[in-house]
Amino acid sequence: MKLTLREIASHVGGKVFGDPKILISGVSEIQSCVQGTITFLSNPKYRKYLAETQADAIFVSDEKQLTDKNGILVTNPQLAMAQTLGLFYPETQSKPFIHELSTIDSNAEIGKNVTIESGGVIQTGAKIGDGSTIGSNTVIGSNVIIGKNCRINANVTIYYNTKIGDNCLIHSGTSIGCDGFGFVTHEGIHEKIPQTGNVEIGNDVEIGSNCAIDRATIGTTSIGDMTKMDNLVHIAHNVKVGKGCLITAGFAIAGSSEIGEFCTFAGQVGVAPHVKIGPNSIFAAKSGVTKSLKGGKVYAGYPAREIKEHNKRDALLNEIGRLRKKLDQLAQDRVEK
Amino acid sequence: MKLTLREIASHVGGKVFGDPKILISGVSEIQSCVQGTITFLSNPKYRKYLAETQADAIFVSDEKQLTDKNGILVTNPQLAMAQTLGLFYPETQSKPFIHELSTIDSNAEIGKNVTIESGGVIQTGAKIGDGSTIGSNTVIGSNVIIGKNCRINANVTIYYNTKIGDNCLIHSGTSIGCDGFGFVTHEGIHEKIPQTGNVEIGNDVEIGSNCAIDRATIGTTSIGDMTKMDNLVHIAHNVKVGKGCLITAGFAIAGSSEIGEFCTFAGQVGVAPHVKIGPNSIFAAKSGVTKSLKGGKVYAGYPAREIKEHNKRDALLNEIGRLRKKLDQLAQDRVEK
Amino acid sequence: MKLTLREIASHVGGKVFGDPKILISGVSEIQSCVQGTITFLSNPKYRKYLAETQADAIFVSDEKQLTDKNGILVTNPQLAMAQTLGLFYPETQSKPFIHELSTIDSNAEIGKNVTIESGGVIQTGAKIGDGSTIGSNTVIGSNVIIGKNCRINANVTIYYNTKIGDNCLIHSGTSIGCDGFGFVTHEGIHEKIPQTGNVEIGNDVEIGSNCAIDRATIGTTSIGDMTKMDNLVHIAHNVKVGKGCLITAGFAIAGSSEIGEFCTFAGQVGVAPHVKIGPNSIFAAKSGVTKSLKGGKVYAGYPAREIKEHNKRDALLNEIGRLRKKLDQLAQDRVEK
Repeated sequence: MKLTLREIASHVGGKVFGDPKILISGVSEIQSCVQGTITFLSNPKYRKYLAETQADAIFVSDEKQLTDKNGILVTNPQLAMAQTLGLFYPETQSKPFIHELSTIDSNAEIGKNVTIESGGVIQTGAKIGDGSTIGSNTVIGSNVIIGKNCRINANVTIYYNTKIGDNCLIHSGTSIGCDGFGFVTHEGIHEKIPQTGNVEIGNDVEIGSNCAIDRATIGTTSIGDMTKMDNLVHIAHNVKVGKGCLITAGFAIAGSSEIGEFCTFAGQVGVAPHVKIGPNSIFAAKSGVTKSLKGGKVYAGYPAREIKEHNKRDALLNEIGRLRKKLDQLAQDRVEK
Repeated sequence: MKLTLREIASHVGGKVFGDPKILISGVSEIQSCVQGTITFLSNPKYRKYLAETQADAIFVSDEKQLTDKNGILVTNPQLAMAQTLGLFYPETQSKPFIHELSTIDSNAEIGKNVTIESGGVIQTGAKIGDGSTIGSNTVIGSNVIIGKNCRINANVTIYYNTKIGDNCLIHSGTSIGCDGFGFVTHEGIHEKIPQTGNVEIGNDVEIGSNCAIDRATIGTTSIGDMTKMDNLVHIAHNVKVGKGCLITAGFAIAGSSEIGEFCTFAGQVGVAPHVKIGPNSIFAAKSGVTKSLKGGKVYAGYPAREIKEHNKRDALLNEIGRLRKKLDQLAQDRVEK
Repeated sequence: MKLTLREIASHVGGKVFGDPKILISGVSEIQSCVQGTITFLSNPKYRKYLAETQADAIFVSDEKQLTDKNGILVTNPQLAMAQTLGLFYPETQSKPFIHELSTIDSNAEIGKNVTIESGGVIQTGAKIGDGSTIGSNTVIGSNVIIGKNCRINANVTIYYNTKIGDNCLIHSGTSIGCDGFGFVTHEGIHEKIPQTGNVEIGNDVEIGSNCAIDRATIGTTSIGDMTKMDNLVHIAHNVKVGKGCLITAGFAIAGSSEIGEFCTFAGQVGVAPHVKIGPNSIFAAKSGVTKSLKGGKVYAGYPAREIKEHNKRDALLNEIGRLRKKLDQLAQDRVEK
């Protein structure tokens, strides 16, 4: 499949510089470009690769970056790249099927155009919305409701009573609705607190591989619309995650904490139980949130502080050597007097 | 299902305040109470919700907290809540069955009243104790022994020769008995050390989703009775975990280390190889244990220290600014003299 | 099975001290030795167990350690132990079979002597090399290529287009080729960047349980020959891991970063996106790599620094108390003058 530069520009709403008739056969990364492809300049770290790129065209946000090269001027080169990838790799819609080695309870409701792959299990009372796909060996528990056009990949487990909205994508190995970690210790015995609530996931949510989202003790653990989670993320019982959050791999949040909308977490962040994080917060990797924090700020460290304060504390360490020297000098002067 | 306040009080061994005949239909959380329910006051953080709660009754440990409300006075409101949840959500015992799409080796021994769900696999020589349930697409390896009344949820893998006691609950995606991470590097080649031991898990153990517990190189990796693990926990080869430990999500312990009984680990803690942790230790989140530690203390930080010492070190940083100011003043005085 | 000390020595290329005819029935750990076995002394921490060991023989690297005991002198006692374990626990090669409850697409290519266990799924266009085993309920996606003599254990998911070399071992619950975490936020919407690349894994690679390795956005996420990964490891899209790396549990590396050959990572290390780590680097547990680092050094801390520098900074904190005391003394002297 080949497209002219003009066709691509028209698709992404950009302006062609250079020859609009050249043929492009794919997208490549700027640091390892392939002839015949279009690349993009987004992360400034990669500007150094611009001069020697083998790509035939470049998405840029500043026409000066093109010098004498063919390219397309757009507001957001990364978005244009994503849209162009979608052109070259359109989502293939295979014909829906229910595999003969799947297990569908007679009390389950399966919508139109649903695919259930080999080994998929749909338990009693579950409802699978129109156009959704249940991957191989994935288990959908009793009374689970899955919306329309979801893709639940292979080897996922969704426990009973979980609700999942439309257009969700859940990756392999993830477990949703498992018991919250709740015990009350009485006379040396850890008594289990029955985990009687459920998990509710909004629309347009993506969840990576090998995540674990616990059901609520009472009520609901909820994940807001359009929140995206990376791999190996842990969400404890009764947590509320707002809409549009971006949660990177290795994140763990303890019971009953709440995250406002559009928060971003870099890798391996931890959040203590019973805290509230305001909307639009950003957390550096490995931060540890120990108390409630207002939104709209960038935080780092453990305990997590505003990043300016965190950096200032970090810099203090460097000052100790200087202080020691000055102090030694002062003491020396005194003796010599 | 509705119960009178008197019936609930009788079940939990508490004393009714107010009207013993009011009907209660469930349990709710104090911060989001529903009419007709009983709630509980345990975490002092939530005391502020007491005045405006919509719940019809409250479990309290101090009758003064009730003012004019209906309630039940108990020693441990959280325990009473757990017991009451058990009343409203009794464990349902479905009729045992062996699904036709399960695979049971002819040399496996299946006890009485065992359920094997669709896609469950029981390999040669495995024994499943009376009353246990093997979830959908869960794989029980050869010569595994599972005790009575266990529930192994969907998509779990238990490798050959593992032993699991009675009344254990294992959540989806967990892998038990996988190879320890053991290599010896010889002339530039990482030679695999055969992992010939096994894993043994006591009675009344709960293990969360997507955990990994490695088999021993030689001998046994062991998890003590009544130990409870959250999600995404890693236990390396030859580790010994004592009884009654509470291990929160994201915990990782390296090879051959030992944990005494009744230790508690908050989230994302790490433990180095070949160390011993004494009984009744408590670790703050994200601690890193680098050497053996006596029991009975609270530890924090990396390297983990007693929390008093840890906090003192942390406070030292704040002092640098003050020292600098004082030093500058002293130097200034000298010049002016 | 019993072997004489002479037979074992001959197998590992060592020299017998004491009686070469004694019979050995297995290998045991020095701290919990069993009569009739051979043990080994490798970690100096365990030297204290030498005097009272019940083992009948010991692998040592220094004949003085034997005193009056039977033993075998070798260059590398741990290697000798690994080789001897291999003698006592030879890899059993069961007769290959394709289980009737597996699902193999008619367009898949299955090599000679391949085993597909119950519930295994091989999708269209996939190729399984000679002598490989696909575990129960493991899902091999379309067009995946798996080399010779691999063992993919139970409940693994390998997404479409992934390539895996020869002699690889992949443990349960691991997910390979899942989507990279790539979104571009445009007018408040997190648009998904199509993840169109794949994952390629070299020869002799071992991957632990519940790991997640993301496919590349464009191009390939690659894992070099003979790299070994522990459990719960996250590898993001477009990452390149060199050959011979040892990656311990809880490791997470962000998108497009590169690791040189023969690097070693202790537990719970994190690596930021778009950085390069030179070959032969070693990282202490919980390190956080925030920028590119040259190879051949030992690093620790967050941000990761050379360990000497890291330790120096850590020691600075201890100096604050001393400085304060000296400063107070100086100020006091001044006043008294």
